Amino acid sequence: MTREVSVRAAGAVDGERLQARHEQLRAIGAVGLTGVSREAFTEADFEARRLVSSWAAERGYPLVMDDIGNLFIRRPGREETLAPIVTGSHLDSQPAGGAFDGAFGVLAAFEALEALDGASVVTRRPVEVAIWANEEGSRFQPTTMGSAVYVGALPLQEALQATDSAGISAGQALRQQELSPLSLGRREFGVPFAAYVEAHIEQGPILESVDVPIGVVTAIQGLRWFTVRVTGQAGHAGTTPMGARRDAVAASVAMIHELSRAMTDAEDRVRFTVGRLDVSPNSPNTIPSTAIFTVDFRHPDASVLARLGDQVAPICMANACGCTVSVSETMNAAPTVLDPAITETIRDTARALALDCVDIVSGATHDAKQMALACPTGMIFIPCRDGISHSVLEHAEPHQMLAGARVLTGVIATLASDSAGPAPFPPSSLTLQGHKGRG
Amino acid sequence: MTREVSVRAAGAVDGERLQARHEQLRAIGAVGLTGVSREAFTEADFEARRLVSSWAAERGYPLVMDDIGNLFIRRPGREETLAPIVTGSHLDSQPAGGAFDGAFGVLAAFEALEALDGASVVTRRPVEVAIWANEEGSRFQPTTMGSAVYVGALPLQEALQATDSAGISAGQALRQQELSPLSLGRREFGVPFAAYVEAHIEQGPILESVDVPIGVVTAIQGLRWFTVRVTGQAGHAGTTPMGARRDAVAASVAMIHELSRAMTDAEDRVRFTVGRLDVSPNSPNTIPSTAIFTVDFRHPDASVLARLGDQVAPICMANACGCTVSVSETMNAAPTVLDPAITETIRDTARALALDCVDIVSGATHDAKQMALACPTGMIFIPCRDGISHSVLEHAEPHQMLAGARVLTGVIATLASDSAGPAPFPPSSLTLQGHKGRG
Repeated sequence: MTREVSVRAAGAVDGERLQARHEQLRAIGAVGLTGVSREAFTEADFEARRLVSSWAAERGYPLVMDDIGNLFIRRPGREETLAPIVTGSHLDSQPAGGAFDGAFGVLAAFEALEALDGASVVTRRPVEVAIWANEEGSRFQPTTMGSAVYVGALPLQEALQATDSAGISAGQALRQQELSPLSLGRREFGVPFAAYVEAHIEQGPILESVDVPIGVVTAIQGLRWFTVRVTGQAGHAGTTPMGARRDAVAASVAMIHELSRAMTDAEDRVRFTVGRLDVSPNSPNTIPSTAIFTVDFRHPDASVLARLGDQVAPICMANACGCTVSVSETMNAAPTVLDPAITETIRDTARALALDCVDIVSGATHDAKQMALACPTGMIFIPCRDGISHSVLEHAEPHQMLAGARVLTGVIATLASDSAGPAPFPPSSLTLQGHKGRG
Repeated sequence: MTREVSVRAAGAVDGERLQARHEQLRAIGAVGLTGVSREAFTEADFEARRLVSSWAAERGYPLVMDDIGNLFIRRPGREETLAPIVTGSHLDSQPAGGAFDGAFGVLAAFEALEALDGASVVTRRPVEVAIWANEEGSRFQPTTMGSAVYVGALPLQEALQATDSAGISAGQALRQQELSPLSLGRREFGVPFAAYVEAHIEQGPILESVDVPIGVVTAIQGLRWFTVRVTGQAGHAGTTPMGARRDAVAASVAMIHELSRAMTDAEDRVRFTVGRLDVSPNSPNTIPSTAIFTVDFRHPDASVLARLGDQVAPICMANACGCTVSVSETMNAAPTVLDPAITETIRDTARALALDCVDIVSGATHDAKQMALACPTGMIFIPCRDGISHSVLEHAEPHQMLAGARVLTGVIATLASDSAGPAPFPPSSLTLQGHKGRG
């Protein structure tokens, strides 16, 4: 019975509607023909939210928002007092990102609601689309800010005080934006979910290389973020003897060079990136007085994450070249194992829809990682071209998006209809397990 | 007779007036208690010019400006048809620079005019104060832009088309500023000077370490500037295998690391600086797609300048790490020997004023380097604390500034009065000797 409902709902997914909405969404903050720039809490970010909200309003789905800007679109269930099954992702992007990272998960989630309508399915539980605020963390750190605050892993005040490179706080940026004219309810943090399932592009090359349309995410690798501040002494580039310099760029280069040597493994499972580097005063003929760079280090194995990650600060200190160095760890997220019952539901649904699937470990972090702290959580990956993401070249084919949306819809239909499904979590269960402190 | 006039004029230098004007000037674009931010063609840069112009207007000295924004303040001589003796420097600063670099040379030059007035000296030749435009080159490259255009070493159109990091051209920035309400004549480029003498802080540690108040600059070391553009491929920091990356920061670090190893010498005469490094998209969890950095390389020996400088591009190419690399040489200025007759006049004047002096090679480049292409040129250095410059910590003591201004005034009085002085240069002599092409 549940399987029949699941397949019927998946069959009501409309690939043309999905593509049309994808095109509408990618036009907001468009960069060139293919990319988007919708950093968190910018006008483009909110314009994207207003667009999706307008679709919800057309359907008569109620909307609520919380104090960090997470947005929830609700399709009622037969038993409205039960905790909802939630699906979604994010609409914010990297400074020059792609049109699929996050946006696909929101579009597929909204398509699931519409497909349930289209197939005239009445679910037992309500189903909600979550649009998480500031997943990318490029403008305001940390990443997955909205979902972290929602589950209580990050204090709201700390999140609102995060500042961008222009000194604007997340709280200020958020207050400047509004979603009106839609009437909008307010949601408290931590309202429990029965389950959370997120669809996303893989952002890596595996599904494409094995030519499989659906990835069943079994785990999300661990992640540690560091910010390294190097303080030297400005001086004239033409006169200051090399031996008398405290050059913040020279020191940073020495640090990153040694970090790169340490952060390698024969299996190529380590991920090490210095993505941000800001130099001051940044003038060709002045010895740099300060340099600030970030380290993004990931590994699926908690012991490797601990061993190599703990070397970041000592390596920086050992290569200070006379500068003052401070290393702060801004995120330390252990590897996350996703819910086995939900991953099995994803496999079953893919099989029922005659779509090949393969288990996969997520290299990227996602809002699902935060939600896994609070409720049974799963993720569905679709391939993306050349594994490229966080780039304007990011691309997924319409048939790949359609397959992912169909599996997601089937899974949501199953979870929301199954009377033997996961029990709702009481709010007290939202306290954290296994989440290491933020440095 | 000339020596008597020289000593009399130097004696009329007013240390209190000099300090008062220094304080007025440092308040414009002040950074904290000690620094200034007056990048070229900003409002602060022009406000500083307006202040000095207002002093000139009070004295009744006529002003002229040329099309790149060089400003000239004239004190007439007995034979107004003769080419002037010119002294001066610049008022623009580094983004967060000191209150002495350039400004001291302008203040000392203006003080020389006033001291000649105060001592009732009528010079044979006119004396002019030059305020050169955009000496620093931090906002618009190249450095010493105004003097380079004046002597014909840099085409005006090329200078005006230089853009800052916001995409604003030097021409646009210059048009937004004006010096009114002063009535201002216009000067053609290349109007000949009989001689040019510039006073400046040393910007290095030598005079302080030997405790000598006056440096007689015999030469200016050579300088080569490069801009290296590294283009990789943006991608997700968590998913892209290390072996599949084209990371513009990783490549830049490899290049700068190898350049640092190559650009060393046992005598510590090489000066190698990566002062500017811009990363894009500059997000912690995105593999950088582009990095642009500058190389500032200097040496007093032309052969070393050629040998090591010619290694910059090959070393960058050899460390591309899969990225595309372009290296452009934006400046190549050979070492410059200053005029022996003028350096001897500086020594004589210092001795006549009972001030110790020592010969010194300038590590920094100066407008004097451009002027040396066109007329007999000399430079006078005064010490600065700890040798620090291009920093808000830059400092020179009032008695050090006074000593420098007195020597400058005595030298100017000598050169402008001496009927056997240097012959004026006809405009045709403004074609370049020994200046290597700009890359």
